[in-house]
Amino acid sequence: MKFGIVIFPSKSMQDKANSFRKRYDPHYALIPPHITLKAPFDAAEEKAKEIAQELDNIVSEIKPFTLKVEKVSSFAPVNKVIYFKVEKTSELEALNEKLHTGYFEQEREYVFVPHITLGQEMSDAEHSDVLGQLRMMEFHHEQIVDRLHLLYQLEDESWTVYETFQLGKDC
Amino acid sequence: MKFGIVIFPSKSMQDKANSFRKRYDPHYALIPPHITLKAPFDAAEEKAKEIAQELDNIVSEIKPFTLKVEKVSSFAPVNKVIYFKVEKTSELEALNEKLHTGYFEQEREYVFVPHITLGQEMSDAEHSDVLGQLRMMEFHHEQIVDRLHLLYQLEDESWTVYETFQLGKDC
Repeated sequence: MKFGIVIFPSKSMQDKANSFRKRYDPHYALIPPHITLKAPFDAAEEKAKEIAQELDNIVSEIKPFTLKVEKVSSFAPVNKVIYFKVEKTSELEALNEKLHTGYFEQEREYVFVPHITLGQEMSDAEHSDVLGQLRMMEFHHEQIVDRLHLLYQLEDESWTVYETFQLGKDC
Repeated sequence: MKFGIVIFPSKSMQDKANSFRKRYDPHYALIPPHITLKAPFDAAEEKAKEIAQELDNIVSEIKPFTLKVEKVSSFAPVNKVIYFKVEKTSELEALNEKLHTGYFEQEREYVFVPHITLGQEMSDAEHSDVLGQLRMMEFHHEQIVDRLHLLYQLEDESWTVYETFQLGKDC
């Protein structure tokens, strides 16, 4: 089945993101607002505990960090995805790196740009229109991130949390 | 904000439940299929870590157990809720009891009947019709439960997982 690894930002950030996702993101009902650390990957259901163990080793060495969101951006023209841009910290980079090498070897389709998706699968006109509006709004969000989540996908494409992992237990 | 404590059954059970929930449960998109151990309760966001600590103490003393589902039932006439009936084990009873006393003091609205909701908020006619059909089907599901989840609710009434707790660490 498919697994994924994400950070859920705080409730206030999720509420803010959902106010846009509700209208502009067809994945709105499938998963709460999130920062993807590792794109969905295939593994047998029985591997869940092993994956969790490996993940535990990784997160224990990375300290909780401050997550900052200051603006809305888009991956256009490559992808018409509108998102909250998340400041790239050394912790996010380290997590992303460790989740694509060694046990978690996986080729990245894109360079890692940490983000919270707000809208996707829009027409060209809607994308420009929404992006224009959101770019003019001011956002300042700052919070501590102290955990991440291992998820698996159900048949209907929605995601369920398998386990949470707290950062920095061995720091 | 509102917190809740649930068990997510295995992927196969969730897929089965969702095949019905999709049609019959308006809460389908708000939360994956689950067994509620403690009804939603109010607490400040800052209390999350404290709640997690208390929960950690409780689950460490209760061993993983076998969850069995054998039939579909309904809470009618009290509530027109159709559900997978989950066999009441001593572990489920102990969890429910500990989550309604001491730190987690909360008055129960109903007697604890562990279940996975499949349909609700239906008309009388639809309820009878769906229940009649599902009662005739055979279900046999058995799995080990080794974890539970603390969730919080967003403004749009959907739920996000705050933390997972593994049963029986101190057993």
